This record gives sequence, C-alpha cells and structure tokens, in this order.
Amino acid sequence: LVVGYHPICPATQPQQAKSRLIDGQTYIQHKHRLAVFAFTCMSKAVICPAYKGLIRIMVIMAKKNAFYAQSGGVTAVINASACGVIEACREHRDKIGTLYAGQNGIIGALQENLIDTSKETSTSVRALKHTPGGAFGSCRYKMKDLSESTVEYERLIEVFKAHNIGYFFYNGGGDSADTCLKVSQISAKMGYPIQAIHIPKTIDNDLPFTDCSPGFGSVAKYVAVSTKEASLDIASMAASSTKIFILEVMGRHAGWIAASGGLAASEAGDAPHIIVFPEIPFVRGEFISKVQQTVAEKGFCVVVASEGASYADGALISGSLNKDAFGHQQLGGVAPTLASMVKHSLGYKYHYALADYLQRSARHVASKTDVEQAYAVGRAAVDKAVAGKTGIMVTIERGKGKTFSWTLGEASLAKVANVEKKMPRSFITKDGFGITQKARDYLQPLIMGEDYPPYKNGIPLYPKLKIVLAPKKLDTEFNG
Amino acid sequence: LVVGYHPICPATQPQQAKSRLIDGQTYIQHKHRLAVFAFTCMSKAVICPAYKGLIRIMVIMAKKNAFYAQSGGVTAVINASACGVIEACREHRDKIGTLYAGQNGIIGALQENLIDTSKETSTSVRALKHTPGGAFGSCRYKMKDLSESTVEYERLIEVFKAHNIGYFFYNGGGDSADTCLKVSQISAKMGYPIQAIHIPKTIDNDLPFTDCSPGFGSVAKYVAVSTKEASLDIASMAASSTKIFILEVMGRHAGWIAASGGLAASEAGDAPHIIVFPEIPFVRGEFISKVQQTVAEKGFCVVVASEGASYADGALISGSLNKDAFGHQQLGGVAPTLASMVKHSLGYKYHYALADYLQRSARHVASKTDVEQAYAVGRAAVDKAVAGKTGIMVTIERGKGKTFSWTLGEASLAKVANVEKKMPRSFITKDGFGITQKARDYLQPLIMGEDYPPYKNGIPLYPKLKIVLAPKKLDTEFNG
Repeated sequence: LVVGYHPICPATQPQQAKSRLIDGQTYIQHKHRLAVFAFTCMSKAVICPAYKGLIRIMVIMAKKNAFYAQSGGVTAVINASACGVIEACREHRDKIGTLYAGQNGIIGALQENLIDTSKETSTSVRALKHTPGGAFGSCRYKMKDLSESTVEYERLIEVFKAHNIGYFFYNGGGDSADTCLKVSQISAKMGYPIQAIHIPKTIDNDLPFTDCSPGFGSVAKYVAVSTKEASLDIASMAASSTKIFILEVMGRHAGWIAASGGLAASEAGDAPHIIVFPEIPFVRGEFISKVQQTVAEKGFCVVVASEGASYADGALISGSLNKDAFGHQQLGGVAPTLASMVKHSLGYKYHYALADYLQRSARHVASKTDVEQAYAVGRAAVDKAVAGKTGIMVTIERGKGKTFSWTLGEASLAKVANVEKKMPRSFITKDGFGITQKARDYLQPLIMGEDYPPYKNGIPLYPKLKIVLAPKKLDTEFNG
Repeated sequence: LVVGYHPICPATQPQQAKSRLIDGQTYIQHKHRLAVFAFTCMSKAVICPAYKGLIRIMVIMAKKNAFYAQSGGVTAVINASACGVIEACREHRDKIGTLYAGQNGIIGALQENLIDTSKETSTSVRALKHTPGGAFGSCRYKMKDLSESTVEYERLIEVFKAHNIGYFFYNGGGDSADTCLKVSQISAKMGYPIQAIHIPKTIDNDLPFTDCSPGFGSVAKYVAVSTKEASLDIASMAASSTKIFILEVMGRHAGWIAASGGLAASEAGDAPHIIVFPEIPFVRGEFISKVQQTVAEKGFCVVVASEGASYADGALISGSLNKDAFGHQQLGGVAPTLASMVKHSLGYKYHYALADYLQRSARHVASKTDVEQAYAVGRAAVDKAVAGKTGIMVTIERGKGKTFSWTLGEASLAKVANVEKKMPRSFITKDGFGITQKARDYLQPLIMGEDYPPYKNGIPLYPKLKIVLAPKKLDTEFNG
C-alpha cells in the first residue's frame, strides 16, 4: 500500500495520491507538483510544496512487507490459516510486499530467522491447507511482561524495521493475542507503527468473542470419532473380557475437548457413558458408582476423561497416584489412574488410550467446517490489514438461524487479551458426567463435514516446504 | 444343499438327485423310483430300491444351516468379513439355510445364543463392510484342550445339531484356527460332520500360510498415518519445547505393527527415527544414544514402541518401572517408561501416546486393501464350504509380479493351527531400530487405498444391527 497523506493538504489524501513502485523505490505524484520522493524507510519527513511553511510533515507509507508466525501448540488446521494468509497476501501484491514467516514462531522474528514465503510454489502453499503441524515451526515462547522488560519488543520492532515489515499476523491463542496487542501499541509508540492482527487458533477453544477457535473442531471430531469407534470395539469384547475403556483427552483448564467425546452418542444411553470434566470436582465414589451402574445396564462402560480433571481441592487426578520409578510425576496419567480405581474397586478388566498429539495432528479426519474457518480467518486477517485495521482478532460469528452458518467479524485485542472462555455449566448434565442438548447444539456443527487430504503410498501427502531464510540485515544477535 | 448320494448307485450321485424342501422336510427324487424320504437329521440310513440287498446305506445331506462367529480381539474390518459371509450365504440360498451368528463369539454357540442373521436387512448387512468392532460380539474364550475335557466340543456339536447347522465359519486368529480344526475332526467322529472353515483375522499378522491377516493392514495404516501426523506436530514444537514423541502400539509377540510405523517415513531420515521391536532385546544405553544422536541431527526424535518390547532376559520394558499406587503393574506402560528414561538421561521434554483400542477400531482410516481382503476371505469361506471343503483356512496369496496383486487360496488347518508367523530378522535394520527396504516392500501394499465410511452429523455412520436371537431348542444350559 503506497500512499502519501498530509493532515491538512487535501491533495495528499490517500485516495488522491497516485503512486507506483519502480525498482524498490516509491514515487508519489503530488497534485500540486510532481514531487518525487525516493524513500526506503517507513516514515519520512517531506515538505509539501503547497503548504510549505504551514505544515512540514508528510508521512509516507511504503508498500510494506508482512510477517506471519505460528504460536503455541500446533493443530491439524493451523497451516490452513497459513495458507489463507499467504494466498491473500499474494493476491494483494500491490499493497503487500514479501510475506515472511517466523521460523519456530516469534523466536524466528527475535532471532531474525525469517522464512521467505515467496520462495514457495503456489502448489506447496495450497498443500498447507491439508497439512497438519506448523509448517514454519511454532514455539511456546512467552514474551516478557512489559513491566519486566521491553527488550524483546524493541528487538522485534528492530527486526521488523530492518525488513520493512508493516504487517504482523500472529496465529495463536490467548498469549499470542496479548503479544499481538502489545506489538501494535509499542510499535506505534516507537514511531514505527505495525498493523498487528491476531488469527485465532487453539484446540482449547478458550478464546473469547469468537464462536470457536480454529483447531478445536478437528480435535473435537477426532475425539468423537475415536470414542465412537473404540466403543464399538469394547462393546464387542465386554461379555467375556474388557469392560471399561477410558480415553484421555487434552484440555487442562476447560472441558471443551472432553465434551466433544459426547458427540459419539447418536442416541441417549450410547457411549460415552461418562465424561470426566475439569470443570466438575472429581468425587471418586460417585465415579465408581456410575461405572458400576453403567456396566450393570450396558455390560460395559466408556469414559472420556480430560487430562485436567481434578479433585475439589484442585489436585489433579493424574497427579494423585502415579509416579514413575525416578519419582517423576507422570504426564497424562488420568486414564491409568481412573482405570486403577475401577480395577481396585470393581475388579473390571480395563483398557485405556492416551491420544496426546494424535488428537491435534489428525488432519486425516479433520472437520471440514474447521478447515474452512481456519483458512478463512487467515485470509480475513490480510484483508483487514489491507483495510487499515490493527489491534484486532479475526472472529467467527455464528448465524442466528436454525441451520448452522457463520461469518467473520473482529474483536478488539484490548478486550480479547487475557480473557478465557469457560464452558458454561449448562453444557454439562446435572450429574456432572455428560453433555446437555445445549452443548450438543453448540458442538455438533463444528465437527461437520470431512475434508480428506490426498494420499500417496497409503499415507497422506503432506509435502515439505523449501523453507528459505531471508538474508539477515542486522549485525546483532538476540539472546533472549 | 440337498443331495442324496450313494457310494455305488450312479442314479443317486449329487448331480442327478433332485430335491425340494417342503415344510421343513426334504424329499429326494430317486431315478429308479420316486422314493420319498422324510428326514430331519443329517445322516439317515435308507434303502436304495435298486441296490437293495447289496448296499443298504445311503447318506443324505440336507440343506444345512450355517454358523458364523467372531473370535478374539476385534478389528476395523472383521465386520467386512462378516458381510462377505452373510452376503455369500444369501447368494447360496439353494444350498445354505439360515446363517446364525454366535452372540459374543463361540460363547454364543455354547450357550445357544444364536443371532438369526436373516432378520437383518441387506442394507444393514452391507453397512457391516464399513463398521468396526465385532457386530455380533466376540470373546477371548479359549476352548479347553481335548486331553483335558471334551465337554465343550460335545456341547458345541449338540447345539449345531439342534439347529441343523452343517457349516461353521470361524473368524479369528491362531486359537480359533485350532478350534475350527477340532470342530471339523470331532464332529466327524461324532457322526455329525461339520464343514469347518477358518476365516483369518488378526491385527498381529501372525497367521502362517497367508500373505497377511485381515485386520493388520488397517492397524498398519492407522499407525503409519498417526506417526506421520504426530511427527509433523513435534517437528513444529521441538525448537523450544517437546523433543521426544513416543507412540506405543500393540503387538505383544511380533513387531509387525511397530514396523508399520516405519511407513510414515517418505525418505531416509524421516520420522520415525526409532522403532522398538519385541524381536530385538532392548538395551537402554543403545536406545538413549540413538535418541541423543537423533535429536542432535534432527532436533527431535519420534519413537514407535511395541507394547511387547522387552529386555534380553525377557522382562517387559513396561513392567520394569511403573506400578500404580495399588501396586498393580500398569498395562501398556512402554511409552511412559521409555519417556522417563529419556527425561532422566537426557532431560528432554517428552510426549507420548498410547493408541490402544483406537488403532484397531479406526475404521475411518482403514486400508482399502485390507477391507477388500477381509470381505473376500469371508465370501471365499462360504464358496469353499459349498464346494465341500472343510478343515481349511482361507488364505491370501500375493502375486509374484512387481505390481501388487493378490488372490485367495487355502491352507489345511492341520498345518495352520499353533504355528505363529514371526517377522523375519531381515525386516529389521542391523542396528535394530528401523525397517529395511524388504519390510517396506512387504508392508507398503497392505496399507494402500482409502475406503471411507459414510458420515452423518460429523461422525461415521455405523448402524446397529437388530440382533434377533433364534428360539432355543435345547433344554440344557451350558455352564462352561
């Protein structure tokens, strides 16, 4: 976007400025006189010939480059968002220069490891739409709080400046929304304003102001499908063998993922029979009774348990029983712990599964709705940036009609940052072990539709990118 | 199949006998005279009018009913075999009466809980082809050795006799092959010969004389796909977070399933970097070195570990470290144990997944080759029975050509029973941590092709059968 503007001189309003880009230099055609300004940096003080003496500052916005980074745990569809960002940037070549991606997320920006996405073919970029994981690398790096240190933000903006980056697309959850907001604010203060747009992503589905978070729908579908399939397996075996099956799923603080296991039930009484939510304080006796009652009625019992499930005092179920021989507390130990309880109390043979990374990388069974939303929020971020927006998160808004529909909107990052969307209590049945119709109505559309990746040699075709780093421009290294 | 035959009299050869079934009684039209014999049991001594005085015995085979049972751990495609059996029986209505299925496997026969498959619609039967689990129920019930007791086999044949069952289709692994053989032998001795045909099924892929066992290909595909996807996830996170991912898979005695994880690698050096086989004695130091070396080279390390992996002295890795608070040895603890070792020795952050039942019920990502083979062996069992075969297992034979092809064959159960097909050492790389090209050449075709189930409301449509039990005919109950 190349515009010249002037606070007063009407001739230099963005709409009226005519510009062209030649050999990396930008020329502004001024109404009053053909004023040719060559510039390479973002802001430049120039003299408006007509208003000379009145106001001497003209801010010129060059065609800026853009930066995209993936943040936090990756998902089956975060690359679909990347695909949306890249494709949209390429469609806005007149306004956006090169799109760089951070190698391993924001760390890539801090260390000036910028992947030049222009080196990737349009076929490779399109393939991102069906490739899980984070194609450019992600990280769990949390920027220091500003009250602690501003060094990281200053470095970030120094790198952006060096690479003429004026757009920052940050694809992540709550933490990255906060970072995004700060980049927008601090860069402005530092005289190098960055348009920072947050692209929502988190399997935890805990971002506010958006109907859901891309990434969640596909985990939900994976968990629902897996629960359904495993329940058919155990139903076949229960008469003489395994009677309890427990699937442990992610979601440390919110039960959205565990709740989605409930979608496996086509009718009342179908598996899963018990969902162990992090929102409901775990009471061993109630759990055991429910298992016993279910086995008495159905012959078997299927449990979906959240890794974050805990007792009333806040102690994690997973931490209460199991330690390995080195004394380390085991990660993800909810399922074996619950299984042991059942074995101990009721004597039933059990099996359990721990889906772990499989649930969030299972692109092969992704939700079509989720893929489409992930792609759309990526594209929308670019469109909004081009329209001059900053400091916002792209949101998904659900239509009011009976048939599921959605559109895109936006929310101010000032409101989004550090707000966690909890699952309403009304989504959980009174006994605390199931989902209500309200939950079903909300969750169901998010897992709708299939969007299979292409296969080669029996496995999905997830091509690798070239990953070409842009030459560094700074002498300094970042030592976080 | 209603035929009258006579060892000498040419007029009563099967081809020449004409018969019809009226009101449950069968009439044989004899060439020499219209001799009408009403009978209800299988063998009957009748007098051939022409040869009267010479040979007085005529064996008459009535149109017999059939029995099908699922045995052992179920798979994503065992119902495809059931579909093949049912559809083929329906096409042979002239020769096969009602097809009963054992409720919960062979236990259903012993307890005279016979599911009347004729009550199921052809649509429901067809849907079995894409439904995981065991639609009629399975069991891990092992028939007693004959030297110990013959009661079970006698009961089985008593039930078969009561329901005019002359065909026994047993769908399972090594144990059921053995049972199948004994039923064939003992029933003949008891004067009520049953045509017993074994339909191969086992995710362990350890049946001899068949190129592979239906059920294995789909687990192999699930493990390959999951390994691929999870490896993209960890690759994205490794720079600043998790560096080790371990996927624990089934296979107590043979590493076929673990080996299939190797198919996730499209080129040398791709994940998985380490496969822990049950065939290779585990040496902790070598494992840790390999992990360290891989992380140094690749930045992360993906491990596929078989639940049956053990030390040179035979002690399971899973049993060596972890016990829960009740002192129970944890099931499926290879992954956490290996993860703890890595954490302890190298300090890397880890994640692990335990696929458990998910891997063998994942019909949503089944191998098309596997589905087709499972269906075909079911059909072939019926065809072979109609052709008069007994005491055999249907086998899959791989074509010799460069392009993968397969046909069906058969093997004598006398040879099959109690023989376990081991994975050749030549399938494992010299260092014991990977698969060779030879393994790849064998495994690759078995995971080829996709065969998606239909979906409704975001999850696969796995319809339930009516499951109508046939009225009991015996007064006695079976008390195992």
